[in-house]
Amino acid sequence: MDAYIYSKISDLLALIKVNKPLIHHITNYVTANDCANVVLAIGASPIMADDMEDVEDVVSSASALVLNTGTLNKRTVEAMLAAGKKANELGVPVILDPVGVGSTAFRNKTVQRIINNIKLSVIRGNISEIKSISGIGLSTKGVAASEEDITLSVDSNYGKSIAENLSYMVNSVIAITGMTDIVTNGTNTLFIENGHKMLAAVTGTGCMATSLIGAYCAVTEDYFTATVAGILTMGISGEKANEKPASSDIGNGSFKIKLIDSISQLTGKDIEERGKIREG
Amino acid sequence: MDAYIYSKISDLLALIKVNKPLIHHITNYVTANDCANVVLAIGASPIMADDMEDVEDVVSSASALVLNTGTLNKRTVEAMLAAGKKANELGVPVILDPVGVGSTAFRNKTVQRIINNIKLSVIRGNISEIKSISGIGLSTKGVAASEEDITLSVDSNYGKSIAENLSYMVNSVIAITGMTDIVTNGTNTLFIENGHKMLAAVTGTGCMATSLIGAYCAVTEDYFTATVAGILTMGISGEKANEKPASSDIGNGSFKIKLIDSISQLTGKDIEERGKIREG
Amino acid sequence: MDAYIYSKISDLLALIKVNKPLIHHITNYVTANDCANVVLAIGASPIMADDMEDVEDVVSSASALVLNTGTLNKRTVEAMLAAGKKANELGVPVILDPVGVGSTAFRNKTVQRIINNIKLSVIRGNISEIKSISGIGLSTKGVAASEEDITLSVDSNYGKSIAENLSYMVNSVIAITGMTDIVTNGTNTLFIENGHKMLAAVTGTGCMATSLIGAYCAVTEDYFTATVAGILTMGISGEKANEKPASSDIGNGSFKIKLIDSISQLTGKDIEERGKIREG
Repeated sequence: MDAYIYSKISDLLALIKVNKPLIHHITNYVTANDCANVVLAIGASPIMADDMEDVEDVVSSASALVLNTGTLNKRTVEAMLAAGKKANELGVPVILDPVGVGSTAFRNKTVQRIINNIKLSVIRGNISEIKSISGIGLSTKGVAASEEDITLSVDSNYGKSIAENLSYMVNSVIAITGMTDIVTNGTNTLFIENGHKMLAAVTGTGCMATSLIGAYCAVTEDYFTATVAGILTMGISGEKANEKPASSDIGNGSFKIKLIDSISQLTGKDIEERGKIREG
Repeated sequence: MDAYIYSKISDLLALIKVNKPLIHHITNYVTANDCANVVLAIGASPIMADDMEDVEDVVSSASALVLNTGTLNKRTVEAMLAAGKKANELGVPVILDPVGVGSTAFRNKTVQRIINNIKLSVIRGNISEIKSISGIGLSTKGVAASEEDITLSVDSNYGKSIAENLSYMVNSVIAITGMTDIVTNGTNTLFIENGHKMLAAVTGTGCMATSLIGAYCAVTEDYFTATVAGILTMGISGEKANEKPASSDIGNGSFKIKLIDSISQLTGKDIEERGKIREG
Repeated sequence: MDAYIYSKISDLLALIKVNKPLIHHITNYVTANDCANVVLAIGASPIMADDMEDVEDVVSSASALVLNTGTLNKRTVEAMLAAGKKANELGVPVILDPVGVGSTAFRNKTVQRIINNIKLSVIRGNISEIKSISGIGLSTKGVAASEEDITLSVDSNYGKSIAENLSYMVNSVIAITGMTDIVTNGTNTLFIENGHKMLAAVTGTGCMATSLIGAYCAVTEDYFTATVAGILTMGISGEKANEKPASSDIGNGSFKIKLIDSISQLTGKDIEERGKIREG
C-alpha cells in the first residue's frame, strides 16, 4: 500500500490530540464506559447524553455524533433522530453502529428510520448487520438477511460487493469489520488485515471501533480515511495488547485493559510500521 | 463428593464453548458490562435488550433469559414480564437474580409479579434476598424478612432449610451464595465451599454468577447441575484470581480483571481438581 | 498544614471500614460501575436505584445520597428530586455532582431545580461547572458562564473566590477539582495539591471522587472535612496508581485498575505521609 495513507492517518491521530474534539454518543449502557475510555485514550473527549431535551444542545457543541443501537428503547430512539437531524443541519458527521440489526423488528425499524431521516457519514457493522441493512426496505436490491451468516469466514470480495452496494444506496462510507476489515465509499475500497482474534472475546470492541471512527471523523471531512483510521487503530492496538507480556496466556480481562493501554499509547510510528492496508 | 458431578460440569463447560449459546439479559446498568464479559469469557454470547418492542424477538433467538432486578424501572419491569412469558412458551430457561428484594416495596412487588407470572428455572440470591422472597405474599409459610441478617455468617443448615422450602414453594432450583454456597432443587441439596472473600469486595460478582448459571442452563435441561456449575465456576475463578501473582496484596481493581481472566481460562481439569462440593 | 486534619481524615477512613455505610446513587450509566467499585474499595456499600417507586425506600436505608447529572433524563430527574427531599427529611446528606451543567439548558434547569428544592451538603464540580452554577438564576451575583474556561490552568485564588461565593449563596460545602483542588464551606477554605494528570485521562474520576465524598459524609456530620477527605483519597490514590510499576509508560486502562487498587489499599499512614493540604 502507498505510504501516503499511513502518514495521513498519523497526521489525523496527531490532530485529535491537539483539537480534543467532543464526541457525542447516544449509545448502549453495556459498553458506554469502554467507549468513553477509548475516546479519551485516543485524545478526544466523550459525552454521553440521550434525553430529548438534552441532545440538540449537546450535539451543537460536538464535532461528531455516534449513534449505537445496542440497548435502544423508544425514548432514546427519538433522541437519536432529533440529534441526528440537528447534526445534519450543523454539518456534524454522524456515525451509525447498527448493533443487532437484523435480529429484531424493532432494531430493523429503528435503523430504517435513522437511514431514511439522517444523512450518515459512516455506518460500521459486522457482515450480518451490513447485509441486513442492505435488505431493509430495499428488498429488491438488497441481500436477504436470512442468508447464511458468514461473519467470521467472510470472503473479502463477497463482503466488498455488499459494502459497495450499500454505500451506493445510502451514500455513506460503509465499514464491515471481521477477519478482514472492509471500508468503502462506493468508489474506493480498502481491506485492513490488522487485528487479533481476542477482539471478539471482549464485549464492545465493535462499539469502541465506531467511537474511534467518530474521533477521526471529528478532525477531517475525509470520512473514508477517518473510517480506515479508526479501524486500523483498533486493529493495531489489539495486536499490541496481545504482545504484552506474552501472547500465550492472556485472559479476557487483561486483554481489554491492555487494549485501552495500547490505544492510549498508539503512535504515528505504530501506524506506519504495523499497518496492513491493501487495495480492495 | 462423587467425581461424577465434576465430570458432568466439565462436559457442560466444553458444550458451552461448542454451542456458544445466546444469553439474553434484562439487567442493571451497573454490572451489565461485567456480565457480558463473563458470558463471553465462559464461551457463550451475551445480548442485553430491555425494550418491550425488542425483548420477545430477542428471547426467541436466545438459549437462556437472565432477569436481574438491580436498577429496575417501570419500563423494564414490563419488558421482564413479557420476555419471561415468551421464554416460558418457547421452553427457554429463565434465571432470576432478585437484587435488593426485601429492601424496597417496588422490588418486592416486582419479584412477586415475576414469580407469579413466570416459571423460573433458577433463582439465585444471597441469604437475605432468598429469605425475603420466601416471605413475600407467602407469609404463612415464609421466613420473615425482618430477621437478623446472617448473610456472611450463615449457618449452612439454616440456609439449606430456607432454600429447600422456597424451592418446594416455587418449583425452581434455588441458590444461596455466601461463605458456603447452597444449591437445591427441593430434593437434592449441595454445598459448595469454593470462593474467596475478595468476591464480596467487587461489585457485580453475584450478577456475574447468575449470568454464568444462565450460560450453563443454556446447554442442558438439568438446571440443578447447571446452577452448581455456574457457582462453582465463579468460586474456583475467584480462588485462581487471588493466586496470581500473590495473594497478599491484590487490590480490588486487579482482582476483578484476574477474575475475568480466570473464567476465560477455566478448564475441566480446574473443576475436577479444585471443586469442593459436598452433600447438603 | 496542621497534622490534625490528616489524623481526622484517617479516623474517618477507619470509621467507613467499620460502619460500611450504604451510599445511594442516582447516577449516570457511563461510570456507575466504577463508582460502585470505588465505594466498595473504600469500605462502604453502594446501591444504585433511580425509579420513582424505588428511591424513597432506598434512601431511607442509606447514609448518604449522591446525585449525578451525567446521562440524566426526565424520569430520573424526578427521582432525584423525590429522593433528595426524602433525604432532607431524614437528615441524610446529599452530595451533588452537576456533570455538564452549563453545557445544556436541560442540565441547567435540572441543577437549578435540585438546588432550589433540596438542601445539599456538598457540591463538587470542575471550575466550569461551579462557575455555571453560580450564574444560573443568580445572574446578578454569579460569574457569567461564558467566561474563558480556565479548568486546567485555574488560578487557585480565582477559583477560591468563586467557590466561596457559591458556598455563601447555597449554604453548601463547595469543591472545585482541578490542578489544585479547592474545598470551602464559605468560612474555611483549603487547597489540596495531590493528584496526577492521568486522572483526567480516564472517564469518571470526577464521579468517583464525588462517590468517595459521599462515603465520608456518611460517617460524620463535618461535611467540610468529609469533602476534603474524599478528594484527598482520590488524589493520593492517583499518585500511587502511577507509581506502580513505573510511571513512565502506564496506559489509561492500567491506570484505572491501579487507581481502584490504590483506593482499596489506602491507609491512614498514606494520608498522613502524602497529604498536601494547605490553607486557602
